[in-house]
Amino acid sequence: MKVLVLNCGSSSLKYQLFDMGDERVLAKGLIERIGIEGSRLKHTKVGSDAVSIETSIPDHKVAVKLVLDALLDKGHGVLSSLDELSAVGHRVVHAGEKFACSVRLDGAVMDALKECVPLAPLHNPANITGIEAITAVLPEVPQVGVFDTAFHQTMPKEAYMYGIPYRYYEDYKVRRYGFHGTSHFFVANRCAEILGKPIEDLKIITCHLGNGSSITAVKNGKCVDTTMGFTPLAGVLMGTRCGDIDPSIVKFIAEKEGSVDKADSLLNKESGVHGVSGISSDLRDIEDGMAKGDERATLAFNMLSYGITKYIGAYAAAMGGVDAIVFTAGIGENCSLIRESATASLGFLGVSVDSKKNDFRGEERVISSDDSKVKVVVVPTNEELVIARDTKKLVSL
Amino acid sequence: MKVLVLNCGSSSLKYQLFDMGDERVLAKGLIERIGIEGSRLKHTKVGSDAVSIETSIPDHKVAVKLVLDALLDKGHGVLSSLDELSAVGHRVVHAGEKFACSVRLDGAVMDALKECVPLAPLHNPANITGIEAITAVLPEVPQVGVFDTAFHQTMPKEAYMYGIPYRYYEDYKVRRYGFHGTSHFFVANRCAEILGKPIEDLKIITCHLGNGSSITAVKNGKCVDTTMGFTPLAGVLMGTRCGDIDPSIVKFIAEKEGSVDKADSLLNKESGVHGVSGISSDLRDIEDGMAKGDERATLAFNMLSYGITKYIGAYAAAMGGVDAIVFTAGIGENCSLIRESATASLGFLGVSVDSKKNDFRGEERVISSDDSKVKVVVVPTNEELVIARDTKKLVSL
Repeated sequence: MKVLVLNCGSSSLKYQLFDMGDERVLAKGLIERIGIEGSRLKHTKVGSDAVSIETSIPDHKVAVKLVLDALLDKGHGVLSSLDELSAVGHRVVHAGEKFACSVRLDGAVMDALKECVPLAPLHNPANITGIEAITAVLPEVPQVGVFDTAFHQTMPKEAYMYGIPYRYYEDYKVRRYGFHGTSHFFVANRCAEILGKPIEDLKIITCHLGNGSSITAVKNGKCVDTTMGFTPLAGVLMGTRCGDIDPSIVKFIAEKEGSVDKADSLLNKESGVHGVSGISSDLRDIEDGMAKGDERATLAFNMLSYGITKYIGAYAAAMGGVDAIVFTAGIGENCSLIRESATASLGFLGVSVDSKKNDFRGEERVISSDDSKVKVVVVPTNEELVIARDTKKLVSL
Repeated sequence: MKVLVLNCGSSSLKYQLFDMGDERVLAKGLIERIGIEGSRLKHTKVGSDAVSIETSIPDHKVAVKLVLDALLDKGHGVLSSLDELSAVGHRVVHAGEKFACSVRLDGAVMDALKECVPLAPLHNPANITGIEAITAVLPEVPQVGVFDTAFHQTMPKEAYMYGIPYRYYEDYKVRRYGFHGTSHFFVANRCAEILGKPIEDLKIITCHLGNGSSITAVKNGKCVDTTMGFTPLAGVLMGTRCGDIDPSIVKFIAEKEGSVDKADSLLNKESGVHGVSGISSDLRDIEDGMAKGDERATLAFNMLSYGITKYIGAYAAAMGGVDAIVFTAGIGENCSLIRESATASLGFLGVSVDSKKNDFRGEERVISSDDSKVKVVVVPTNEELVIARDTKKLVSL
């Protein structure tokens, strides 16, 4: 069975084609600048060189056709006919409180996702556009939605409610949703496999640290808390997002910038590692700055590290202990320094990271010392594989 | 030496007169509705019944004169002459980054406090008015300022900086300040005395839980982190304040309520325990609601309890362990249920609260079981005594 996995942004489309026989990726690619001048496709048949195509791509329907053409191409393609394509799985950001797991997409589900647009005004419309583009081009192919919020739907109410008037939950569904759920689910389960224990017996803290970052408490396989909230703005310091701040600061900034919209934009796009360091949102540039003795680069690094440390402590307290800590995503997989510094003060919890074991980038490894009571592991995330697996499972029912 | 301690609000004035020979309170009282119709003084000579005086009190200067008259009164007074009054100590909310300890008040200090008005627009003007009223009536008596923010000035930069553009710190001093510092200082030091250990050797988490609540990590006697931030809005759920929320919610609420000012007011005055429960901001009413099975009362209680649990874990991680946890202020001293529930999942840290020892209100006691690695204590706070002691010390130099 071949499954196409799509992740549609407002002007982009990422894809991977899986052969689910052995879960192998056959081809993958990225379309950028949909509807914008200079739009292009970068396509890779696995094992071959990447192909770049610059062409007019006015909308997602054209983008989807271009992807299918690339997959069928005699040179860099991997399919001889679209009949080989059994299903399409979509990453969808927000399912509100409607779906706690992946679902087959039909009219009723699409209506539900449209109802969630006010909760994710930037992301859900792009995801919906991608689904509708596939429906237009491949009306007979079954489609599945895999939601960033779904894994977090098991949080208890004291973890997901905010201390604001209750009517904001009743009338507008303002609550903590959490994001990166597919990644947290994948790495928590992979961690249990690596430890050789049933996930139902484990308390795991998963640190997804990338340009956007979130940390999740996974107790007995279920999410019980996560750092992102109503939106992806909350939690630890991110590339350009502020993470947790005193909420009164929003009013202060709105008065200085001239409007609450400008404040919100500043907190999402000009803050975080970028805003603190004044250098870059990319932690590699921050490490370079630190090496040169840049004080604000060091501050940004220390703020991120300290925020991770505090959430690990908070979630250990929330779960009544912790058996394993997982690092994943761009920073978590590649930055050995943050893994070491964020866990340095956790000896009292039984956490001991072995500096030698930790000295690598981007692989799956246990980095805690052999006698560490709490295991610390690095697991490269693979959200596309989860989407492909859920898609296969749901269309095979 | 007799020291008068004043705590001036915008329309109120609380006072206590101390005999510093034995740190005894001789008299105390409260003036309410200064500048508002129906203003009144309630005065108590310790050991006698309270006296109530309703009279016109147009401003703080008149209020201060009324306090001095009450202290000199032949019936309910405790001074035979104002010459007995050696000094006046003032609670001042905000000293910004200017003062990390209490100071003698003079023209330069007053200028500094006026510079901090933008940081505490409601509180500092009232505090300044009270100081100026004493200066007008008792120009020769030395005065001391004791600041809510001072104890927290030892926080490291990664704990006090926010993930917003750095210029907001440089230009406007937006950072975490923390409040209730005098209370956290007092109960942390008293805790060390109770444990019979030097505070320099201890990691203490102090939970000041009242209508406003804050939790502080005190490592070796110094504050290293605290839950309140730029303002008192951040941290755990409070009586009517929201505590920590996703900062994007401020924009969402501002759009629904019509302005960011209205959103800020809602988050400060209609949120917290009151907003979640829909019953009351008073935890005693919430406990009554829980007893009757009210779901939202139970939710508000659980949210507060869970928030405390998470911060204890976070601050243990921040300090690399914890030796003692202190509960203080209205809720912390009187609500045995919150002390028990907030520590229930902390067995993995070596925290064990003894239900029988915990079953009381409003006294100084150790409530952890004898074999609890982490000691848990209740310490009634006494900010006025700290102000009186600092005042005595500074005027005796």
